[in-house]
Amino acid sequence: MPRLAVLYSGGRDSTLAACLLDPFYDIQLVTATFGITEAHEYAAEAAQAVAYPHTVYHADRAVAETACDRLLQDGYPRNAIQFLHEQTLEAVAAEYDVDAIADGTRRDDRTPTVDRPTAQSLEDRYAVDYLAPLQGIGHGAVAEMAADCLAVHSGPSESIPSADYERALRALLRERDRAVEEYFPAHEQSRVEGRK
Amino acid sequence: MPRLAVLYSGGRDSTLAACLLDPFYDIQLVTATFGITEAHEYAAEAAQAVAYPHTVYHADRAVAETACDRLLQDGYPRNAIQFLHEQTLEAVAAEYDVDAIADGTRRDDRTPTVDRPTAQSLEDRYAVDYLAPLQGIGHGAVAEMAADCLAVHSGPSESIPSADYERALRALLRERDRAVEEYFPAHEQSRVEGRK
Repeated sequence: MPRLAVLYSGGRDSTLAACLLDPFYDIQLVTATFGITEAHEYAAEAAQAVAYPHTVYHADRAVAETACDRLLQDGYPRNAIQFLHEQTLEAVAAEYDVDAIADGTRRDDRTPTVDRPTAQSLEDRYAVDYLAPLQGIGHGAVAEMAADCLAVHSGPSESIPSADYERALRALLRERDRAVEEYFPAHEQSRVEGRK
Repeated sequence: MPRLAVLYSGGRDSTLAACLLDPFYDIQLVTATFGITEAHEYAAEAAQAVAYPHTVYHADRAVAETACDRLLQDGYPRNAIQFLHEQTLEAVAAEYDVDAIADGTRRDDRTPTVDRPTAQSLEDRYAVDYLAPLQGIGHGAVAEMAADCLAVHSGPSESIPSADYERALRALLRERDRAVEEYFPAHEQSRVEGRK
């Protein structure tokens, strides 16, 4: 069975992406850490709760610093998060011995997104397939599909421990004495606690 | 379990789309016929071979005639096929008592495609979810995933009996004494013969 690395935050979408591809791939979940927070441990716990193998990819802190510079320059997080996602996809494609990489990006995600040329470029340069099984599925159906098979805890992003890019950027903003809430509007976050 | 209608040609992609969503939905396959060919019977055979319930949707012949007019006007089939797909999605969303509709469109399909505003509009107007589980997956991975679970027969589109839009348009071109090969370049077609 071909080997697949799924970029994993411990949240609903990346877990559902893994479940969808499970019949076709030997799955491992991968969470990037930039050495800023220990949030990858939340992802490791979620991975254990759904019984998938999990590894942590130790990325360069400088990548997150660059993203934080961009965030401060823009005044909003979209490009910074996009940059972190693309850098992580590149790194995992380059350094993991897998046939394919995947993520949990949805049809109506505004960021990160992986457009067709970016996907094709990743595939060509690293000889892997890039899979985004939720790319053609909207928010409502993703929520229903996840509710069918996963125990998901949702709430305000501040209060839900997950290992997404926002958490690293929030920590860097705090280090730089910036007001986090100026850059990240309140939104809902999810955390997977097990299978149903 | 929510009910899903999958637009079905009997080919590889629409069958794989059904397989991917199978754990989450009560699936029925739907093949449109415009009253021009009996090609929906090939789709019915393929559906039986993979053991999914199958129904035929009898669309108005005028829809295919309009598409054929467009094809002759354009000189290429892209917009005609897009029109037939959108009309079929609309009709199935309107007339089937389902919670969701799906198709087998891939990331690198040039036609038909369903972009995000079109998907959102379908969902809003008919109160269904629209799912394109292969939208974020490229040709290579789709072929591998299908090969893993389906017995697929592939060959030149002329020689593989399937119930796609091209077949109806080809038949109408013949009725109008037009040279089919001027409008449809040779390409590969697939037909599902069972599960592995």
